[in-house]
Amino acid sequence: MKLTILGCHSASPHKNKNPSAQLLEIKGHRFLIDCGEGTQVQLRKAKVSFAHIKHIFISHLHGDHFYGLPGLVSSFRLLGREAPLHIYGPKGIKEALTLLLKLANSWTNFPLHFHELSSDSSVCIFEDNEVSAHTIPLNHRVYTNGFLFAEKKGLRRVNIEKAKQENVDTSQLRLLQLGQDITLESGIVVKNKAVTFDPETPKKYAYCSDTAYLPAIVPLLKGVDWLYHEATFLEQHASLALQTKHSTARQAATIAHDANVGRLIIGHYSSRYKDICLFEEEASQVFKNVTLASDGLVIS
Amino acid sequence: MKLTILGCHSASPHKNKNPSAQLLEIKGHRFLIDCGEGTQVQLRKAKVSFAHIKHIFISHLHGDHFYGLPGLVSSFRLLGREAPLHIYGPKGIKEALTLLLKLANSWTNFPLHFHELSSDSSVCIFEDNEVSAHTIPLNHRVYTNGFLFAEKKGLRRVNIEKAKQENVDTSQLRLLQLGQDITLESGIVVKNKAVTFDPETPKKYAYCSDTAYLPAIVPLLKGVDWLYHEATFLEQHASLALQTKHSTARQAATIAHDANVGRLIIGHYSSRYKDICLFEEEASQVFKNVTLASDGLVIS
Repeated sequence: MKLTILGCHSASPHKNKNPSAQLLEIKGHRFLIDCGEGTQVQLRKAKVSFAHIKHIFISHLHGDHFYGLPGLVSSFRLLGREAPLHIYGPKGIKEALTLLLKLANSWTNFPLHFHELSSDSSVCIFEDNEVSAHTIPLNHRVYTNGFLFAEKKGLRRVNIEKAKQENVDTSQLRLLQLGQDITLESGIVVKNKAVTFDPETPKKYAYCSDTAYLPAIVPLLKGVDWLYHEATFLEQHASLALQTKHSTARQAATIAHDANVGRLIIGHYSSRYKDICLFEEEASQVFKNVTLASDGLVIS
Repeated sequence: MKLTILGCHSASPHKNKNPSAQLLEIKGHRFLIDCGEGTQVQLRKAKVSFAHIKHIFISHLHGDHFYGLPGLVSSFRLLGREAPLHIYGPKGIKEALTLLLKLANSWTNFPLHFHELSSDSSVCIFEDNEVSAHTIPLNHRVYTNGFLFAEKKGLRRVNIEKAKQENVDTSQLRLLQLGQDITLESGIVVKNKAVTFDPETPKKYAYCSDTAYLPAIVPLLKGVDWLYHEATFLEQHASLALQTKHSTARQAATIAHDANVGRLIIGHYSSRYKDICLFEEEASQVFKNVTLASDGLVIS
């Protein structure tokens, strides 16, 4: 699992302060999460091939999370893309993108699948054999979802040498991967645990932005390895956070603490703060393992 | 008159290659012409106060000329703007921006006036005492206008010393500015030309992007001081220019030559060319005074 922060600042773009966008690499997928203005340039800087992006998840339709998407989709078209693109986002996203493409007389030459979201409960929006994605309903000024990406439990890993010693035939390795014991022709039973290792622990990543402090999401975040939670403000501006439905660094850390996540990543800093380190200081009083997001940061 | 090139590259944004946007300062106005993705960052880099922009002219609704506008309008709102904003652009621009603002639940707290264009002839779209703006209908894959900005002839400039010598009263200076002769109480007539200088020659700027080679615009461009004309391709790709309704450097120079403009500025280079100097080389074979646009370039 690898996370590239493409942009982690709130509101309007500044030089070297990009609005929200992240690339999550998980089990061979490259999921783009949010797409603020300038995301395609950030993708280029991070040397991400546009062709590898097949799923884009948009939390909400505020500009700093969404206004880079029309340009990115146009670029896909100009680059001759043929592979389908799946876009997950709030109801209305299809109408907006379709209108912009129509006005530009720029219909995509690849299948564009919209998955419009409107549920107020957590729902599964993507699933294959190796990974799933669920929404995390958030509390912001417009309809907003976070996203929970979870690897599925993998196969048991066979200790090849040990299996050979026990005379297991290679044709039976698949059964070992699936957790079964093996009965040899001699009648001897080889216990699965004797010749396999546990599968790798499945990883989970949760993205929560933008949202007011929302303890209701804690149960959904239990067991998450990495949690990105917005922290637009410091506690000194808690009333502004309340008013604009954003969180403070302390509130983000409280969510991380209560959900007992592995690591908290914070971002979406308001541009009013010159010293971003204050966010780490405040959050780490409540939760120890805090990482400050920065544009271009790679976590793996 | 001062022109700042904010972006002059075609198609999708690259690091250090911004899509179309320009700021024209003329007679106290700051006109934004086109607004590709990333324009607000380019404005910040050029240290342009957002509050000074009151008129935005959009040539056409392709992303590289337009997808920076929703974010810029959102930023105006976040910055607490109260002054009216006028947006001139093709029919559909109002529907698109209004939908995006509605989806973001971000109504502007300042008056937003749309001036939708649909005429195929040149029309006056802005006029005050000092400057006018007319459309220049172009030939592209979607409905597109260039823009002609013209200063109006100013007042005559009074030679104060000479006027005093001739006993003209200060209350009569305004009449001199307006070009009138003055009859003194003594009955002596002071000829206007004896105590005034000609007004400064009014300046004209024309922006033509995007367009196929279109000789029909030459009459509109006669007497223009600076002409920005797109040159997406070199002659070696003239068939591509024809197919995509863009121009070559030679074609841009031919328009400049035939209209006898003062200076030709070219830009909107396709990213296929590594050496932009080839554009200057090709154009200057037809027209001598060629300037290559570059992001951040200021012409005054």
